[in-house]
Amino acid sequence: MAEKGEDVKLLGFWASPFTRRVEMALKLKGVPYDYLEQDIVNKSPLLLQLNPVYKKVPVLVHKGKHIPESHLILEYIDQTWKQNPILPQDPYEKAMALFWAKFVDEQVGPVGFKAVVKAEKGIEVAIEEARELFTFLEKEVTGKDFFGGKTLGFLDMVAGSMIPFCIARSWEGMGIDMIPEDKFPELNRWIKNLKEVEIVRECIPPKEKQIEHMKKVAERIKSA
Amino acid sequence: MAEKGEDVKLLGFWASPFTRRVEMALKLKGVPYDYLEQDIVNKSPLLLQLNPVYKKVPVLVHKGKHIPESHLILEYIDQTWKQNPILPQDPYEKAMALFWAKFVDEQVGPVGFKAVVKAEKGIEVAIEEARELFTFLEKEVTGKDFFGGKTLGFLDMVAGSMIPFCIARSWEGMGIDMIPEDKFPELNRWIKNLKEVEIVRECIPPKEKQIEHMKKVAERIKSA
Repeated sequence: MAEKGEDVKLLGFWASPFTRRVEMALKLKGVPYDYLEQDIVNKSPLLLQLNPVYKKVPVLVHKGKHIPESHLILEYIDQTWKQNPILPQDPYEKAMALFWAKFVDEQVGPVGFKAVVKAEKGIEVAIEEARELFTFLEKEVTGKDFFGGKTLGFLDMVAGSMIPFCIARSWEGMGIDMIPEDKFPELNRWIKNLKEVEIVRECIPPKEKQIEHMKKVAERIKSA
Repeated sequence: MAEKGEDVKLLGFWASPFTRRVEMALKLKGVPYDYLEQDIVNKSPLLLQLNPVYKKVPVLVHKGKHIPESHLILEYIDQTWKQNPILPQDPYEKAMALFWAKFVDEQVGPVGFKAVVKAEKGIEVAIEEARELFTFLEKEVTGKDFFGGKTLGFLDMVAGSMIPFCIARSWEGMGIDMIPEDKFPELNRWIKNLKEVEIVRECIPPKEKQIEHMKKVAERIKSA
């Protein structure tokens, strides 16, 4: 278990999937931490000081050391507090968890959200583009409770925070079910499993509030 | 040392910094491998089969398992063959090596190369933008022989293959010294140290041939 006086702080934002997954990891490990909610428009001097390159949340501060970038933070947490492992020990399985996590953040997230903001080729094409990417993940989770196997792991935190509890909610705000059960039975089973994990429920944003937030973000980008 | 019959194959491309760094890692570890040069325009059925998501080199094949993405390959190599470590053991130092490696590939590489292809705001602005990014790395390597400390490590392979032996050569082809010694004394000292490492010299592309290649790539992108 985590020792007392670990001196852990997390700079985050309530609707950020990148922050949500870090809270999941800290809770799974049972590490006590201070959460410092950030204004992501008017950035605090602390955030600018701790992440001078990207100026983004999340940043984990542990004993005066500061780590940006959610994948790196999750791996740091996993190596620093060994209980309830997040990443596989096997080098190949670990590489694959990191590979699909990168795919979720670099492909699925941007393609899914871009479609909400600006479906240049029409909404039907945008939906198809996003669903083509989901197909890779449908295959990866087939026959497993979680991407990590029997319990919640690295890729579950990354994909969970990004897909059902962020991107799909943006689409839901437009009245569209992006991950219909008949097309993606395995992903739907996985989402049900996710919702049964208490720390996941504790870490995801309130749904209606997030949908409103995502609409505002989309409007801001459209009018920029 | 590597065992016989490791059955390691690397799909790569001679001018790709992402491939060059993987060869450095395999040579540092003393792992024997078969190198399969790929046509990156007319992609082979093998490449499409082994990396269906990105369809890119490098791909490492080890005992029938295939791993894409150079950072993941380097970490896999480091975990599979323990001799001559590439990544730090300390979780924070490891996170920082991965952080700066990501910065090199996602920021320095694209900004540096974009400037060669299309300096929208003029060549002087493009040079300044790239050099602003180099400044972060100048600070990181200050007082050290290599980014990894006394010996060649993860970030040296990533930054080395990308900056002096790829991006800077593109600029050299235009008659510009992107990393002048008076502005970046520490990076220049690091580049000198890199050139003294035999496996680095073995893995970098022939200079004139690469400059010609980069010119052609830039022309192809400009006219697309």
